[in-house]
Amino acid sequence: MTTTLRTNATLDLGPAAALSCRECGNRTPLAAEFACAECFGPLEVAYEFGTIRREDIEAGPRSIWRYRGLLPVPADVDDHANTQPGLTRLIRADRLGAELGLKNLWVKDDTGNPTHSFKDRVVAVALAAARQLGFTVLACPSTGNLANAVAAAAARAGWRSVVLIPSSLERAKVLTTAVYDGALIAVDGNYDDVNRLATELAAEHEDWAFVNVNVRPYYAEGSKTLAFEVAEQLGWRLPEQIVVPIASGAQLTKVDKGFQELGTLGLVEPTPYRVFGAQATGCSPVSTAFRSGGDVVHPVRPDTIARSLAIGAPADGPYVLDAVRRTGGAIDDVSDDEVVAGIRLLARTEGVFTETAGGVTVATTKKLVEAGKLDPEAETVLLITGDGLKTLDAVADHVGPKATVPPSSKAVHEALGY
Amino acid sequence: MTTTLRTNATLDLGPAAALSCRECGNRTPLAAEFACAECFGPLEVAYEFGTIRREDIEAGPRSIWRYRGLLPVPADVDDHANTQPGLTRLIRADRLGAELGLKNLWVKDDTGNPTHSFKDRVVAVALAAARQLGFTVLACPSTGNLANAVAAAAARAGWRSVVLIPSSLERAKVLTTAVYDGALIAVDGNYDDVNRLATELAAEHEDWAFVNVNVRPYYAEGSKTLAFEVAEQLGWRLPEQIVVPIASGAQLTKVDKGFQELGTLGLVEPTPYRVFGAQATGCSPVSTAFRSGGDVVHPVRPDTIARSLAIGAPADGPYVLDAVRRTGGAIDDVSDDEVVAGIRLLARTEGVFTETAGGVTVATTKKLVEAGKLDPEAETVLLITGDGLKTLDAVADHVGPKATVPPSSKAVHEALGY
Repeated sequence: MTTTLRTNATLDLGPAAALSCRECGNRTPLAAEFACAECFGPLEVAYEFGTIRREDIEAGPRSIWRYRGLLPVPADVDDHANTQPGLTRLIRADRLGAELGLKNLWVKDDTGNPTHSFKDRVVAVALAAARQLGFTVLACPSTGNLANAVAAAAARAGWRSVVLIPSSLERAKVLTTAVYDGALIAVDGNYDDVNRLATELAAEHEDWAFVNVNVRPYYAEGSKTLAFEVAEQLGWRLPEQIVVPIASGAQLTKVDKGFQELGTLGLVEPTPYRVFGAQATGCSPVSTAFRSGGDVVHPVRPDTIARSLAIGAPADGPYVLDAVRRTGGAIDDVSDDEVVAGIRLLARTEGVFTETAGGVTVATTKKLVEAGKLDPEAETVLLITGDGLKTLDAVADHVGPKATVPPSSKAVHEALGY
Repeated sequence: MTTTLRTNATLDLGPAAALSCRECGNRTPLAAEFACAECFGPLEVAYEFGTIRREDIEAGPRSIWRYRGLLPVPADVDDHANTQPGLTRLIRADRLGAELGLKNLWVKDDTGNPTHSFKDRVVAVALAAARQLGFTVLACPSTGNLANAVAAAAARAGWRSVVLIPSSLERAKVLTTAVYDGALIAVDGNYDDVNRLATELAAEHEDWAFVNVNVRPYYAEGSKTLAFEVAEQLGWRLPEQIVVPIASGAQLTKVDKGFQELGTLGLVEPTPYRVFGAQATGCSPVSTAFRSGGDVVHPVRPDTIARSLAIGAPADGPYVLDAVRRTGGAIDDVSDDEVVAGIRLLARTEGVFTETAGGVTVATTKKLVEAGKLDPEAETVLLITGDGLKTLDAVADHVGPKATVPPSSKAVHEALGY
């Protein structure tokens, strides 16, 4: 645990009032801490919200900062250079819905973010909070989307960045992080080694904000903006069903938290909604726990093409089970072949090319409909959180030109069956 | 030239009133035509605009369709499934500005579009017009961004697509088009062969809309939305300088047209602005013509890493010269090394990873400032029109991890010079 670098007198994290332990409920002042001093449970941000009106949000920036009154950031957050993520498209998905058997389907397409994944949201919140907490370097351990988002956000803000990756990472992911010219360090070891190293470095450097380690409580809040945007884009209404991919599980629990906050604050009618979770079978500890009916999420060794979801010991696993069970949802998992089929189905029907995580979401949705878990009549939203350009290998053996022909219209006609 | 498939009685292209020859001014009814029957000059859309108010635009969709009253599309255009492109970020670029010597700089980041380039804009307009004109298949010859955009837009709309590419195209570009599952045809030949084949096929299939061939006049209008968004995002004001990359030149001329329309309609003060053009030296026919002071753009054989700008015989070349000279701008070109430096500079300073075309724009801007052509004090906008994820090879030999180390904090410290 690092110490608070600023005194509370100058610390302005907007409506954030304290950190609160998710296990024992113990409250502690806002600081760069992530584990409860009493019980070592994970800390999360607790708020004292002021009056927040729809029209103020609607008149705000075209980014997640329109919801700054609901986030642990100061009111002037957007005066500092930042990537301005969010407000991505929520699109009707009638063609996908027809294939899946869902009559009222929407896709939240988060590939439109600055580095093309939802990670830009959480990193932007982490950076804003880190600035208030007195940090000066943005850092993370990562195998992909988070590395891109941290390196880009730091570049835009004029901060130094330290990004730790396994040295075995694919070339494309290395390049798309290295181009931002931060301190990208390849570590000889697996992701667990890199993660341990990050925790060690966070303890040694009081000016380094590891977004998913020592400022994790603030970082995680950024995922609430997915819920806020979905509700606003539906016309200030909650969907009846939402399907969310599970990696650490933080996104799912924060989407749930976001819906609850909107209801509590009177920004939407607090209508019932059900939260569904999606995993790849090759890394499905939460799905397995859900199926068993238990509360314990047993760690697994990931083996799936859905690498951005491949967290074998998901920190928020138990809270995911709580949220899904409380709302009457379900969790399921799909094979790598189904993941690829999911990617292709979404691309073919809606023109959205997602990474493997999105394929997991689409394929799991299909499975949940077929099993009668998802109501075909209910308004449903799928969260598509990352971009297919980053995981081209997943589709490389499955798609290609219909034909290769000489440059004549006759040859084209033959190829097309005319 | 194909025939009009609908009678004019049912043809609804919104404010579009006729096609008009850019050479002889001859007007002809709206139809799927692209060349003047009198002089073979290129046709463009002429309008009869109604009253258009800022507040109506601001209350419109969060996409290019907020400007539908200024485009050749029907008022209900957004009722049909489409990719909803546009309304991408316009970001302050103070850090880039400091490096370039521009005191008031903005970057229009069009990588946030559905397939991550400005082509989504022009294709969306082409599809909407094509639907009105009675076409049922969306098609194009392309080497990259356009192929992605056409295949995705057709998938989303439930249209068939036919996309022709040179068979030598890089694997990544093939995959990102093929995933949408249209009829992707690889043609043994160069891009000129593919282009000729497209023109031949357009003449043979009256239901195939080749976006950049037989519906080109409508397609090209989509680029005006870049101008509209820049002006609205600046607070309904024109910038004093704008730098635009030149491929066919259509984008530059349409941005100019867009600014003029906003002034004429009273949506902005018609303040003076200067338009600047950027090319890669390896394909710089317009820059060469500008430098020579002449009006004729001599075709060249492209040889540059900026493939999305590599059009050796740019159709709008003479009109680019007109617009740049009329507004008091300039055109210049940069080497491939400068292109890479431009990509890296933008990434390092603003966290935006652009493709080679964006590198051309940044590097040419640098050159134009150094030559005293761009006024360092004037408000300036750079158009960044495509995504670095699509041209990774351009930076592959130039960026990478700072170090590869064993998993110890000591090793990280040494690598970072602590």
